[in-house]
Amino acid sequence: MEHWRTAIAHSDQTGIWLRGYDLTALMSRPFTDTVFLLHRGRLPGEGERQLLDAVLVGVADHGAGAPSCAAARLAASGNRESLSAAIAAGVLAIGNDHGGAGQGCMVLIKEGAEEARREGITLEDAAVRAVDRAVRDRARLPGLGHRVHTTDPRVKVLFDLARQHGVAGDGVAFVSALERAASERIKKLPLNIDGALAAILHDLGFDPPAGKLIFIVGRVAGLTAEVAEEYAREKPMRIRIPVKYDGEPPRSVE
Amino acid sequence: MEHWRTAIAHSDQTGIWLRGYDLTALMSRPFTDTVFLLHRGRLPGEGERQLLDAVLVGVADHGAGAPSCAAARLAASGNRESLSAAIAAGVLAIGNDHGGAGQGCMVLIKEGAEEARREGITLEDAAVRAVDRAVRDRARLPGLGHRVHTTDPRVKVLFDLARQHGVAGDGVAFVSALERAASERIKKLPLNIDGALAAILHDLGFDPPAGKLIFIVGRVAGLTAEVAEEYAREKPMRIRIPVKYDGEPPRSVE
Amino acid sequence: MEHWRTAIAHSDQTGIWLRGYDLTALMSRPFTDTVFLLHRGRLPGEGERQLLDAVLVGVADHGAGAPSCAAARLAASGNRESLSAAIAAGVLAIGNDHGGAGQGCMVLIKEGAEEARREGITLEDAAVRAVDRAVRDRARLPGLGHRVHTTDPRVKVLFDLARQHGVAGDGVAFVSALERAASERIKKLPLNIDGALAAILHDLGFDPPAGKLIFIVGRVAGLTAEVAEEYAREKPMRIRIPVKYDGEPPRSVE
Amino acid sequence: MEHWRTAIAHSDQTGIWLRGYDLTALMSRPFTDTVFLLHRGRLPGEGERQLLDAVLVGVADHGAGAPSCAAARLAASGNRESLSAAIAAGVLAIGNDHGGAGQGCMVLIKEGAEEARREGITLEDAAVRAVDRAVRDRARLPGLGHRVHTTDPRVKVLFDLARQHGVAGDGVAFVSALERAASERIKKLPLNIDGALAAILHDLGFDPPAGKLIFIVGRVAGLTAEVAEEYAREKPMRIRIPVKYDGEPPRSVE
Repeated sequence: MEHWRTAIAHSDQTGIWLRGYDLTALMSRPFTDTVFLLHRGRLPGEGERQLLDAVLVGVADHGAGAPSCAAARLAASGNRESLSAAIAAGVLAIGNDHGGAGQGCMVLIKEGAEEARREGITLEDAAVRAVDRAVRDRARLPGLGHRVHTTDPRVKVLFDLARQHGVAGDGVAFVSALERAASERIKKLPLNIDGALAAILHDLGFDPPAGKLIFIVGRVAGLTAEVAEEYAREKPMRIRIPVKYDGEPPRSVE
Repeated sequence: MEHWRTAIAHSDQTGIWLRGYDLTALMSRPFTDTVFLLHRGRLPGEGERQLLDAVLVGVADHGAGAPSCAAARLAASGNRESLSAAIAAGVLAIGNDHGGAGQGCMVLIKEGAEEARREGITLEDAAVRAVDRAVRDRARLPGLGHRVHTTDPRVKVLFDLARQHGVAGDGVAFVSALERAASERIKKLPLNIDGALAAILHDLGFDPPAGKLIFIVGRVAGLTAEVAEEYAREKPMRIRIPVKYDGEPPRSVE
Repeated sequence: MEHWRTAIAHSDQTGIWLRGYDLTALMSRPFTDTVFLLHRGRLPGEGERQLLDAVLVGVADHGAGAPSCAAARLAASGNRESLSAAIAAGVLAIGNDHGGAGQGCMVLIKEGAEEARREGITLEDAAVRAVDRAVRDRARLPGLGHRVHTTDPRVKVLFDLARQHGVAGDGVAFVSALERAASERIKKLPLNIDGALAAILHDLGFDPPAGKLIFIVGRVAGLTAEVAEEYAREKPMRIRIPVKYDGEPPRSVE
Repeated sequence: MEHWRTAIAHSDQTGIWLRGYDLTALMSRPFTDTVFLLHRGRLPGEGERQLLDAVLVGVADHGAGAPSCAAARLAASGNRESLSAAIAAGVLAIGNDHGGAGQGCMVLIKEGAEEARREGITLEDAAVRAVDRAVRDRARLPGLGHRVHTTDPRVKVLFDLARQHGVAGDGVAFVSALERAASERIKKLPLNIDGALAAILHDLGFDPPAGKLIFIVGRVAGLTAEVAEEYAREKPMRIRIPVKYDGEPPRSVE
C-alpha cells in the first residue's frame, strides 16, 4: 500500500508536531490557536483568534431540541454503550439545513468576490447579481433568513468584533450587501448566524468547507454536554416520539 | 409528548443563554471557557482554562493514520456528499482502545480517592490496592502504558502546568502513585496521555464520561483538518487497503 | 503496511467470491442465504433460512418513533445531503437498550448451556441459577420484560417456526426456562423479541455479537424506508422537539 | 409537539403492522418481501422478489478493503464498545463514489424515460442525448465504467434474470442504450454494478434514492460479517496506516 501523504501532523518516538510546531509548545496556548493552525497552516493574530473564538462559541449550542442535539440524545437513549456513537449521531444531523448553510454562503462570497475582481465591479454590484440569479433560479440564498429571531443577536456581535479587530473584509462587505439587495428585491431577509459565520471565516482566510467544519467543532462542545446530561439525568429509552399512522388499513397477506 | 428537560441552553426571540449566561457575552471570551462552562456549569478561572486548553490541544491530532483520522478519510473517500458523515466516521473510531481510555482511568481515580477517604488510607495506598486488584483480575490499567513513546512528552507538560496553576490535586497524585505502584509490581508502565488527561480532568472537577467527551472535542479539531485536506488533495476512492484472503477455496453452490 | 487477512470475500478481474462461493451463483438464491453464509460460513438449510427470515422481518420496523427510526429522521431533517448519514444515525441508536439486548441474552444462553454441560445439570437448573445470580447482583435479565406488549406476538411465531423446522434447541429451551424461573422468583417477566431472537440465533449457531448485528441487518430495511418517507413527505427542519429549561436563571458574566 | 405522520408501521398492545400487513404474517415470508414492501408499499411477485434478491446479494460484499468495510473495521479497531458504531462508520463511507452511484443513474434513467415519452423519441435517442449532455458538461455518467472488471460479471446475471422474469423494462433498455452511446461517443465504458442495480430498481418501480438505500441494505449484511470477523480474529488497535508527512518542517512557536 502506498503511504498516505499529509501536511498536518507527524510524530516520532520523541515528539508530535502539528503543521511543524511542537505540540507541547502549542499546549501552552489557547485551543483556538490550534483550531486555526490546523485549518489555516499558521497561528492566528490576537484579533483573528478572538473572531474564531466568537464563531465557535456562537454555534456551540442553542437548545436540546435542535436536530443535532436531539439526534445525539436519541442515540444516547437507545445505545448507552458508546459516548462516541451519540456524538456522531449528533454530528450527522448537521447539514445544509442545520448548521451547515455557512458552506454555501462561503461559496457565494468567494464567487462574488471573484466576479467583482474579474469584472471590475463593486462587491455591492456582485451581490445584486447574486440575488438576481437566485430569484431567476428560484434558489435559496444560504446565510439569509431565520426561523425564530428576526435579528439574530449573534450577527451584530460578530461584525462589531470583526471591525474592531480589523478582520472585516470582503466577506463582511459582501454578505451585508447581499442582505440589502435581497431585502430590496425579494423580502426582508435578515442575515443569520450561518451567513455571519461565513463572512467571518472568509475574512479569516478559510475555504468554503470550513463553513460546515468549524460549525461542527463548535457544536461538538455543545453535543458533548447534551449527551453528558442525558446520561446523568435520564434513563435509557425515556424518549417517546408521538406518531400518527396514516397508511394502508390492516389487510391480509393473501 | 412530554417536554424534554435541560439545564444547558435556552433561547427566545431575543437571545440565547448557556447555563444562564448570555451567549453574546460568552462570545467575547475564549471558546475553551464555553467548553468548561457547558460541562462544569461555571466559568473557569485562568489556571483552569489553561489546563483545559492544554488537554484539548494535546489530543487534537497526532497523525493521519490513527483510527479516528483514517476512518474519517475513508468515509471522505467513498462519500464526498457530506462533510458531517466523514467527521462522524472519525468520531466513531474513538473508544476505550483509541483516545477514550481516560474515561476508565477517571473511574479508577474516583474510586481510589473515595476508597482513601472512606477507609482513611493514603492515595498512595489506594493506588497500590488498585494495582493489586488489576493483577488479580488480569485487567488492564487504563491510562498506563504506551505503544510508541516510552515517555509521552505531553504528560510532563500537563503536570507541570497543573502544579504551576495550583490545579494539581487528587487526580495527579493518584495517577502518579498508580504509575509507581504498577512499575514496581508489574513492569515499567509509564503514564500515557489518556492517564494524564484523566488526572487533569478529575482535578478540574469533571466526571468520568468527560474522559471520552473532552477527547472528542479536541480530536474533532484535528478530524476537520484531516477531512479538509482529504477533499483538497485527494480524489475520491484513492484509498486501497491491501487484503489477503485466507478463507474457503472456491466451491460450488450445489 | 501488512495485508489485512479475511476469510469472507475475495475478488479478481473475473469474479467475486463470498466464503468461496461465486457471487453470481449466490445471486440466484435468496438474500437471506447470503446473510446466513456471511455469518455462519455455510449455506442454510430450508428451515434455517425460514427462521432467519422470520428474525429479520420481525425486527425490521415497528414504528417511526423508536430511537433508531427517530434518530434517522432527525438526521434527514438537518442533513439532506447524505442518505448514508441518516441511516448511520439510525444505526447508532441501536444498543443494549434498543434492539441490542439479544447480544446479552445470547451470552446468558451460551454460559447457561456450558454450565449445564460442565456440571451435569439440566438447562432448567442452569436457568434457575442465572436468575438467582441476577437477583443477587441486581442485574437485569436481557431478553425478558417488555414495555408495551405483555405477550409479544412475535415470540410465539418464532418458537412455533423453530419447532416446526426442527431448529429449536438449547436456545429455545434455555430462554423458556429463564422466563419460567424469573416469573416464579421475581415477577411476571415475559420473553420479549430480543430474547426470542437470541434463542433462535443461538440455535442457528450464531455467536453472541449476532444478537446485535442481525438486528441491525433487519432494522436497516426499516430505516431505509423511514428515511425515504422523510425525504418524500417532509421538508427539512420540520422536526421540533419541545424542551423545558430548568437550569441557572440568567446571570451576568462578571 | 405535533405528531409525526407515517404510512409505514404502526403497532398497538396486540400487534405490529407494516404497510397494513400483520408483521407476524410477514415473518413467514422471505425477508426480501419485507424489504420490497417497505419501499414499494406492496408485496412483490415471484420474479420481482428474485430480482431484488439478486441486487441485494450482488452488493453485499466484495472485499475487506473497500472504503465501507475498511471504515467499519477501523472503528471496530479503536472503539470496541459498540458494534453499532462500527456498522455506522461503514455505512458512512457509502456515497456517490462508493456504492451509491446507482442513485444518480436512476435519475438519468427517470429523466431519459420522461424525455422519450414527452418528446416522442426512442429511449435509444434519449440515451444519446444524455451522453451528449455529459460530454458537453464534462460530467461523469453514473453507472458506467469500472476500476477493476472490464465486464462486471454481476451485470449479465442481473439482466438475464430480469429478462427471464419479465421484469426488464425502460431501465434495462435505457442503460443498455447508454452503454452503447457512451462507447461510441466517448470510449469503451462498460455498465457497472451501480448502473445495473439502477436499471433493475427502476424497472421494479423504486425511486432514485433507492439506488443508495438498497445498496446500503445489501452492504450492511457484509459489514456485519466484516465487523464480526474483526472482533473474532483481531486485537484492538491492530491497524496501522503508513503515512508520509510532507508539510512544514519543524519550526518554533515564537
